[in-house]
Amino acid sequence: MFLALVHHPVLDRHGKVGTTALTNVDLHDIARSSRTFGVARVFVVTPIRLQQRMVDEVVGHWVHGGGALHHPRRAEAMERVSWAPSLQAVKAAIADDRGCAPHVAVTSAAMQHADLSFEDLRRRLGGEDGGLDRPVLLLFGTGWGLAPEVLAEADWKLPAIERDPSFQGNDGAWNHLSVRAAVAIVLDRLLGER
Amino acid sequence: MFLALVHHPVLDRHGKVGTTALTNVDLHDIARSSRTFGVARVFVVTPIRLQQRMVDEVVGHWVHGGGALHHPRRAEAMERVSWAPSLQAVKAAIADDRGCAPHVAVTSAAMQHADLSFEDLRRRLGGEDGGLDRPVLLLFGTGWGLAPEVLAEADWKLPAIERDPSFQGNDGAWNHLSVRAAVAIVLDRLLGER
Repeated sequence: MFLALVHHPVLDRHGKVGTTALTNVDLHDIARSSRTFGVARVFVVTPIRLQQRMVDEVVGHWVHGGGALHHPRRAEAMERVSWAPSLQAVKAAIADDRGCAPHVAVTSAAMQHADLSFEDLRRRLGGEDGGLDRPVLLLFGTGWGLAPEVLAEADWKLPAIERDPSFQGNDGAWNHLSVRAAVAIVLDRLLGER
Repeated sequence: MFLALVHHPVLDRHGKVGTTALTNVDLHDIARSSRTFGVARVFVVTPIRLQQRMVDEVVGHWVHGGGALHHPRRAEAMERVSWAPSLQAVKAAIADDRGCAPHVAVTSAAMQHADLSFEDLRRRLGGEDGGLDRPVLLLFGTGWGLAPEVLAEADWKLPAIERDPSFQGNDGAWNHLSVRAAVAIVLDRLLGER
């Protein structure tokens, strides 16, 4: 399992496709959740050179620098994080590593037409229903979510994360989770202990 | 369902009981996850007056101030957040509001002897297995986790969040999630759509 945190192409608050800035706490939280659930690598996707350098600096501090001395467990999480200039480059890196391109699964709070349930993907990750013959790349968008062309090109669309509508006191759908929370929930749904 | 983010009493990195500082992103992420899954109120537990004022200022900015104008959805999440000086005060506030003290459920990455599964609590929240005659208060510790006396006094101990051990490529238990990620996963396990 691979994960990409996409800073481009994503939507801004006006629905325009653009590029978001890096958020330090995203790297830490997503690295820790990824280590917990066994994600092999986390790619931070940004075409901006300065943001790529920031990823190198943050990861370097926690894996080889002062952070690693004081907080060795954080190094075990952060060592799986690196940047890529584009989604194309992420797929190429995985193909290089594993000998074949990944299945791409997307998540979105605004997902209208999901075509694969978390339970189905979990079963296939566990070797059931024919299993999987290729690695899986999970995409998460920053800002106001992944650009439409990324959703359209994906192999699988996972449902939006929502509250069980059968519970009492439900005051309407509202699923503006942070990307950190969305990553944690998706990994737990796919790989968490039951 | 109520939630408390505990800054005292919690463990520090040396295993000593103390008080942690407020983290701004915790308030935002936990408010957003709580709104998504229908948690009625989020209490930030700290005995330190300056930190209590910080909660008031952050929440005020997003609910009544400049933040509310530019980002109205964040107000819908943040309006459920307030501070309390102690866990005793949280229980008293809930009893005041609902006419009875809550069942207290604790989570911990170091939980040794869980006595209630997520599935069992989910069923009771849904009205099965006799349902629940009192509200539920979920406690989450900051720093290195809730102090032992808090765990000992709780009605229910939920299991540590871990990866399903049956999946391939498991490189050992490691569950140092951020408290933001832990809250998201616990709420999804209890209240998320399936």
